[in-house]
Amino acid sequence: MNPLILEKEEIINLLDFSEIINVVEKSFVDFSAGKALMPVPQDIIFEEFKGETHVKSAYVKGGKYYCIKIASGFYNNPPIGLNSSQGMMILFEAKTGIPKCILLEEGALTDYRTAAAGAVAAKYLANKDSENILVVGTGNQAKLQVEFLLKIFPIKNIFVWGRSEGKARTYCDYILNKQISANLQIINKIEEAENLDLDIIITATPSRMPLVSSKLIKKGNHVNAIGADMPGKQELDERIIRNAKVVTDSTAQCAKSGELQHSLKSGIMKLDKVYGELGEIISKKKIGRENLDEITVFDSTGLGVQDLAIANYVFDKYCDMEKIK
Amino acid sequence: MNPLILEKEEIINLLDFSEIINVVEKSFVDFSAGKALMPVPQDIIFEEFKGETHVKSAYVKGGKYYCIKIASGFYNNPPIGLNSSQGMMILFEAKTGIPKCILLEEGALTDYRTAAAGAVAAKYLANKDSENILVVGTGNQAKLQVEFLLKIFPIKNIFVWGRSEGKARTYCDYILNKQISANLQIINKIEEAENLDLDIIITATPSRMPLVSSKLIKKGNHVNAIGADMPGKQELDERIIRNAKVVTDSTAQCAKSGELQHSLKSGIMKLDKVYGELGEIISKKKIGRENLDEITVFDSTGLGVQDLAIANYVFDKYCDMEKIK
Repeated sequence: MNPLILEKEEIINLLDFSEIINVVEKSFVDFSAGKALMPVPQDIIFEEFKGETHVKSAYVKGGKYYCIKIASGFYNNPPIGLNSSQGMMILFEAKTGIPKCILLEEGALTDYRTAAAGAVAAKYLANKDSENILVVGTGNQAKLQVEFLLKIFPIKNIFVWGRSEGKARTYCDYILNKQISANLQIINKIEEAENLDLDIIITATPSRMPLVSSKLIKKGNHVNAIGADMPGKQELDERIIRNAKVVTDSTAQCAKSGELQHSLKSGIMKLDKVYGELGEIISKKKIGRENLDEITVFDSTGLGVQDLAIANYVFDKYCDMEKIK
Repeated sequence: MNPLILEKEEIINLLDFSEIINVVEKSFVDFSAGKALMPVPQDIIFEEFKGETHVKSAYVKGGKYYCIKIASGFYNNPPIGLNSSQGMMILFEAKTGIPKCILLEEGALTDYRTAAAGAVAAKYLANKDSENILVVGTGNQAKLQVEFLLKIFPIKNIFVWGRSEGKARTYCDYILNKQISANLQIINKIEEAENLDLDIIITATPSRMPLVSSKLIKKGNHVNAIGADMPGKQELDERIIRNAKVVTDSTAQCAKSGELQHSLKSGIMKLDKVYGELGEIISKKKIGRENLDEITVFDSTGLGVQDLAIANYVFDKYCDMEKIK
């Protein structure tokens, strides 16, 4: 039997925020318990087309499926009306290698699983009554991070900063369309945020230099550092990392390509000062937030097990609804 | 627009031996000219299921597509009536990353491009009037290697050796069904082949120790060494390699996983004694066979550019026939 082919729209229509949080949460536990097989990603760079393709594969021992994700970014696409991301995830049966489902998700599932990871991290690390959010960035991920947080925190104020004021406005229009009760406010200069009473700070930009100064981070804050996921990328002042309880998705991977890379390189912090991995906190091997005043940072680089978890979730849900398999 | 999905049977019906030889021949030239991007393959091993999956990607600079192949071997499949190989190739547009065609080929295209490589090598390295072939192995690849050679040589006698006499008989039935004029003969002991007057020797087994003794190889012989494509695999006595003009698909890859690995490891031969790559001979940078008496060996490990070439060929041919694209 041929694999099931699911298109982006069908996939997005199936997604439920709380369900995604649950499956992604479980994937971090599997990863930190050493149950994941995730070979080194394969990268192809197409210099002449400003394009890149990355193959990430993952399997959790004992699981029914393994997932191969082909993620791409072709930066000449948007001017000609195409999505820069054209990727797909493929689920294979682990017992036989038979391809069961091809998810033509064009990067959407990566966006969702990444935002869900931010929500899981905030659930374990931010103060329970967090009301005020600052989001740095106005792209897709900045939108989804906030949408997910709205599901689990009593958010009252959302502050937005982006390099382009126009994009910040579009961002607000998008969030307001979601019929939320929180107030939305654009910050013109990121320094202005230093005077705000914030609870959670989300950074979700492709920046290659620190955007968030350590002056911005106060007692009790939690930071979801999402953007830095490759060597060279950075959003936070290194002093933020040094002064915080740092929790990673994968410490080994963050040391190479997360925020952590910079504080390790500059020597401002040593690897053994990293508090732990999110999976260790979820599985109660380590305690999450210990008091109201702690500053916590979640360094997110993205794991193949998150791809596997969300692809598996979509496939199962589709089959349940259609009563197939 | 969604990618075109092609199933194994459709794909096989499209294949023409001479056309495949041409596209595979060109891929070797591209590779040896340094035009190929081929990242290190990604491997996942499923110990509990006796399974393995390998991701091989390739792009030739200036080309229209890149190819990602997901090849698998699940060795518990045959007893339950499933093919051990369940792989696919996916063609993406290089300019945009858009997936254009998913070829559900279950390993068949790998079989064909490998056999075509053998035919290309023999075309440049074997004596033109080669009439007598010995094929060591009775599997799929052993069948296809002979079918391809029949297209370009005036074959009169085919000698077959396999560990299982039953499989050798099945092999003969298969070849005889192809309505050929050559004689077919099973060799009971491989040593018997030492007394034969052979022109081309094909080895296509998963052996991990030398099957073919140096006594078997005579002046003027050409050997297609196909089976050894991973560390540990070996079909030829190392002395055969030492005494022959050795041509590889990729010298770097053969040194790691081809026949070459063993003669290099034992020190019987140095890397600089390798004559060259098939692509260099096709493109006339190096001469192929120089006289009737030379002994030549083609060490084949399989290249991503061959996958790209055959997938691209199938897709183009399908589109031409259906007048789409």
